Amino acid sequence: MATTDKASTRDRLLDAAGELFYREGVSIGVEALCRTAGVSKRSMYQLFTSKDEVLAASLARQLPAYEAQLAPDTQDAAPPRERILRVFERLEKASAEPAYQGCPYLAALVELKDPEHPASAVARGAKEWMKGFFRARAEEGGARDPELLARQLMLVFDGASARSGARVETLDGLAVATVTALLDAGGVKHGVK
Amino acid sequence: MATTDKASTRDRLLDAAGELFYREGVSIGVEALCRTAGVSKRSMYQLFTSKDEVLAASLARQLPAYEAQLAPDTQDAAPPRERILRVFERLEKASAEPAYQGCPYLAALVELKDPEHPASAVARGAKEWMKGFFRARAEEGGARDPELLARQLMLVFDGASARSGARVETLDGLAVATVTALLDAGGVKHGVK
Repeated sequence: MATTDKASTRDRLLDAAGELFYREGVSIGVEALCRTAGVSKRSMYQLFTSKDEVLAASLARQLPAYEAQLAPDTQDAAPPRERILRVFERLEKASAEPAYQGCPYLAALVELKDPEHPASAVARGAKEWMKGFFRARAEEGGARDPELLARQLMLVFDGASARSGARVETLDGLAVATVTALLDAGGVKHGVK
Repeated sequence: MATTDKASTRDRLLDAAGELFYREGVSIGVEALCRTAGVSKRSMYQLFTSKDEVLAASLARQLPAYEAQLAPDTQDAAPPRERILRVFERLEKASAEPAYQGCPYLAALVELKDPEHPASAVARGAKEWMKGFFRARAEEGGARDPELLARQLMLVFDGASARSGARVETLDGLAVATVTALLDAGGVKHGVK
């Protein structure tokens, strides 16, 4: 029973943290966090040494869902070029939601400023995962320089998520068109599996 | 004399604000801001109604220097394609500085979350200026769809500034290579003036 209680306190705290940090930014205070989660500060500090650790844990906890949302098909039979484009189609779809405020991992990196922050490390991991996905697909698709192409796609992904999240851009085909041009320029073939 | 004092208090406040907000983020407090500027809170509130207004005024004040740094040559004789590429060369150069933390206007938009914040309006203006610069050059250079190309270049600019500012990417030719591919795909000619 004590174990269950602890697990549920942890879950409530991380759920509230994920939502609050995303909506209001990483500078949200411990008071507001515990109030939203319905958890006492004492309970929070029994589970985590600091707010920074709560932020890092909440970003780490969202990672599998984030990856599944953007690239759910690890064993997908679709050609590599299509698999890359689908990530951007999904980004465009997500960015049209009213609550969308950009990629939470990029936001954490921009807001925290500090590469040593535990949440920055989690965010870098999320970015590395995506770059690795692009690089592997670029290789399978016959790109001339898979590493360069993966880095270019990350510029577009992060630019598109930041700009649409900040409401200075409505993607609506823009990211897909941009990526199509870069895949063509990079020599990624159509229909190769 | 009183006018000069006021001007210098305002300058000190805006200089400190620009530096602090850039280095530590928009959540920096009024106390820290006034301490760094060497200005009393009373003096600050004589000049500005809120910290939000200080932030907006400091971003607005930096704008001419920002524009001159990235695109100094409003009457430049260089071909439009070169003028676009030069913005990205300058971005790459700036991003190699140790203190670089990305574009301050994109950071403000990401951090503030609130499109109604007075500083968000200034930041959107900075982004609009740059998009307008790209669009005008794309038209002069014979792009098939100048508006689409300008929006693509903004994705690359903001992605490149955010990623290099967060130290997850070292540009070193990456932004220029990406933009070159997009200019080619968009039909921007070489050497047209």
